[in-house]
Amino acid sequence: MIGCGLIGTSMALAIRGKNSDARVDGVEVSHRHLTLATDSGAYQQVYSSFPDNSYDLAVLAVPIQAACALLPEAASKATFVMDVCSVKTPICQLASELALSERFVPSHPMAGNSGQGPASADKSLFRDRPWILVEDWPACHALAPWIESFDSRIEWVESAEQHDAAMAAVSHGIHLMSVTAMLAAAFEADNSDATNWELLTGPGFRDVTRLSQSPHDFWVPTLMANKQSVGRYLKAARDTMMEIERCLEAEDNEALARVLKAAKSAKDAWTTAKTQSGRDV
Amino acid sequence: MIGCGLIGTSMALAIRGKNSDARVDGVEVSHRHLTLATDSGAYQQVYSSFPDNSYDLAVLAVPIQAACALLPEAASKATFVMDVCSVKTPICQLASELALSERFVPSHPMAGNSGQGPASADKSLFRDRPWILVEDWPACHALAPWIESFDSRIEWVESAEQHDAAMAAVSHGIHLMSVTAMLAAAFEADNSDATNWELLTGPGFRDVTRLSQSPHDFWVPTLMANKQSVGRYLKAARDTMMEIERCLEAEDNEALARVLKAAKSAKDAWTTAKTQSGRDV
Repeated sequence: MIGCGLIGTSMALAIRGKNSDARVDGVEVSHRHLTLATDSGAYQQVYSSFPDNSYDLAVLAVPIQAACALLPEAASKATFVMDVCSVKTPICQLASELALSERFVPSHPMAGNSGQGPASADKSLFRDRPWILVEDWPACHALAPWIESFDSRIEWVESAEQHDAAMAAVSHGIHLMSVTAMLAAAFEADNSDATNWELLTGPGFRDVTRLSQSPHDFWVPTLMANKQSVGRYLKAARDTMMEIERCLEAEDNEALARVLKAAKSAKDAWTTAKTQSGRDV
Repeated sequence: MIGCGLIGTSMALAIRGKNSDARVDGVEVSHRHLTLATDSGAYQQVYSSFPDNSYDLAVLAVPIQAACALLPEAASKATFVMDVCSVKTPICQLASELALSERFVPSHPMAGNSGQGPASADKSLFRDRPWILVEDWPACHALAPWIESFDSRIEWVESAEQHDAAMAAVSHGIHLMSVTAMLAAAFEADNSDATNWELLTGPGFRDVTRLSQSPHDFWVPTLMANKQSVGRYLKAARDTMMEIERCLEAEDNEALARVLKAAKSAKDAWTTAKTQSGRDV
């Protein structure tokens, strides 16, 4: 397990929970995380740098830029190499260049909790959560049954590019809409004589702006690694906003109703599709 | 009670709950709502048009455009006239023109539930919820203790214009960010070969897009009645999005981090201000 943070240590606990004899070693550069990971009982051994061993599987559970940097050495130590990053195009390109087409397992568990680091790890973190695999990488098919054994829900995407476009629309761009909603509210409050707008907020404001509270250190590299798809999503959102502004200026009630109805239709359709496939909304 | 829907009938139930002898009559043009309102037990009598009576208070619990249209007749029947609309500028202007400065009570209870109509009414609907009053209208001060008796939380704004600017930032604009987030996701999905993006959504997507599921018939008139402030909010949001797009294109990590940190600071500050004043977040 290369990176013994929340995801890495939760995976290690899940592996050991299914098979207590499984050998799981960790590699962790942060001294504090190394101590916590060792204390977690998830690993037989936690190293501060790559050990001189060979493994069946190396998991890159580090941010995307670090995962790319460590991929060559990880591939020299293990039969299969999996990553768990939330952006897939850069690392899949690199894996192709390194001729790892049969051995690389691009994957993305969509799981987390409000904590950070090995102390927040939980062997049930992946239960009933989506774990995305990429269809055109054969090793994903080989390891799918093993991933499913964590009670996670396998979701297939056709390609790394399809994964990243989907993430821009359902996660990365959504995050930026939350950030933008909060900043615009703060900007308008600062430009008024307002003293108490925060007291006028309700559940809608709370939910839409919630993601803006996330720390930036995860998000900056993630957004940069997916900048093309995220930029396209934001452009589509700005086009919709300009159309809404046009409706308001022209007092075009019917056109505004069309925009709101289209959003409701889409939301209803997405919710129905998810429910009908047996997933929680 | 002019309009016996969810808000009107909940108010009637709250009034009767505090004082079972209080006389509360309703006026309701929808035949179905009239029957349901009569059956609710909230009213002594529900009329299909204005009765030839006089009252201490008339409450306009109808959409903003209807409230403006009915204000003159309501004022001819009652000592005080209150409205409960979510936009204040148009009706306050009209009340000034009608020389109702001492008798009009502009107010906005920020309460609701997932239902609609008198059948969903609840005498506790306003408990611990904000009920906004406008400082520069003297009758608001006269009726504040009575409104507080519903266990609602009075929040003062300086003026109708301040109210509407605040609502654009904490409610109306937030609603449109949710609508836009959903439409942009659907647009990107439609423009890809995607078959299953809805299965990849998580709690963040659910929360940010939740408001897009609201029916358009409340929102179109509300947004139109507050079009200037809402347009200003959307423009501020688009400016932020263009700055984010610039950061992504230029791979300007530091500037992107500044945007995300500013959003987190604002969100943290608003949350702290609300918590410290004893309100639930």
